[in-house]
Amino acid sequence: MANSRSGDGMIDRTVRVLETFTADRTTQSLSELSRRSGLPLSTTHRIVEGLVAPGLLERDDDRRLRLGPRLWELALRGSRVQRLRQAALPHMQQVQAVVREHTQLAVLEDDEALFLERLSHPDAGANITRIAGRLPLHASSAGLVLLAYADAATRRRVLAAPLVRLTPDTTTDPAALDTLLDRVRREGGVVAKGTVETVSTGVAVPVIVRGEAVAALAVVLPRGADVAGPREQLVQAARRTATDLEAEDRKAFR
Amino acid sequence: MANSRSGDGMIDRTVRVLETFTADRTTQSLSELSRRSGLPLSTTHRIVEGLVAPGLLERDDDRRLRLGPRLWELALRGSRVQRLRQAALPHMQQVQAVVREHTQLAVLEDDEALFLERLSHPDAGANITRIAGRLPLHASSAGLVLLAYADAATRRRVLAAPLVRLTPDTTTDPAALDTLLDRVRREGGVVAKGTVETVSTGVAVPVIVRGEAVAALAVVLPRGADVAGPREQLVQAARRTATDLEAEDRKAFR
Repeated sequence: MANSRSGDGMIDRTVRVLETFTADRTTQSLSELSRRSGLPLSTTHRIVEGLVAPGLLERDDDRRLRLGPRLWELALRGSRVQRLRQAALPHMQQVQAVVREHTQLAVLEDDEALFLERLSHPDAGANITRIAGRLPLHASSAGLVLLAYADAATRRRVLAAPLVRLTPDTTTDPAALDTLLDRVRREGGVVAKGTVETVSTGVAVPVIVRGEAVAALAVVLPRGADVAGPREQLVQAARRTATDLEAEDRKAFR
Repeated sequence: MANSRSGDGMIDRTVRVLETFTADRTTQSLSELSRRSGLPLSTTHRIVEGLVAPGLLERDDDRRLRLGPRLWELALRGSRVQRLRQAALPHMQQVQAVVREHTQLAVLEDDEALFLERLSHPDAGANITRIAGRLPLHASSAGLVLLAYADAATRRRVLAAPLVRLTPDTTTDPAALDTLLDRVRREGGVVAKGTVETVSTGVAVPVIVRGEAVAALAVVLPRGADVAGPREQLVQAARRTATDLEAEDRKAFR
């Protein structure tokens, strides 16, 4: 792939600074930011001041840096994935009210499944789960659906790349995965037993808007659980989400 | 306030480009971006290419620009407000299951109420609501709670600024607002009738973590609705959210 990073280098370096923040690392000192981004301290300082001024980064009481609500607002306000998430959320709540297990929404991004939302059972108490987490396409049920409905180039690229084995049940043979993906399309979804964690079964279906799979909806069940009921719930939720998205599109006359 | 925009000017200009995207304007052409950001076309082009390369912006099939999932991911992954939203979500779902009306979560940002989440009744069908929307502190029930628990400087600043009248019931007299805010603190919440829209009543309570109000939880009811039940639901949800956040903090040994 040609190097298309022809834009301003300062934006690239800014992204490198922002990328050092993760779910496990929400506050950092300037020197940590410098080390983790691989940028000189002076450059990091200049970028940090540039990000603090408009509120994209902020300092906590210990002068450590964290992402500011302003960045969150900028990223979400006009975001297509946020719109998708909002359309899916009420229907995911209905799935979850019946199935009472983790219910997830994912999209294809950089040949991985990017999770936009995850609902967990309220009774489970604290559940500060990983939104914006990623899983390999070939391992997760949502990923298998996204890959099955992806364009041919994406499928070729993923089949040609190393297929990591997360558990003994992860499909890591390209030919077997190719066959599995065909079956996912034929059947309109997948039941993936123990492919991410040995104790769990993922069930996933596509959200199809005007013929294109824009997302996958999935539930994560205990391995031995019945899958027919949850799958039917997912199919209905996916259909309703697609209907709402199409109605919104018409309203926006696009 | 001193001008602290001493950082790199390119970051400021990049923010100006990103700010032109809103919930109603999710795709734009390069020339629209240039016009709305007030930047020359050449500068806008350079910034756009810099943002497209790492995926913060992307082009749709018509070559129009939109925010990329990568920006969404960067902004959310290590975000404190996202963490707050995730802690509150299961408890908001419980409120909503009982109250069956809009349930909202807001934080104080730039002297406004910034809405992090809004759940609506699933049966209401399409509800692609405004996450990352804002309302004036003195008008919305969530805003009144956030302002009542804010530091003295914030309260002084808001009382000294023009208080916009959204409806005839919005409190726009600074002295009356000051008195109202004291009462909100004494009573641990607010019932605001028709202050944002004449047909609605907002009920809001604070989420208090280690003595600090980090957010407000609110429900929006039809004007004549009973408020006692919803308020009790909110109080419980706020308490559970705070408990979960404090438990998470202990896990992260901060």
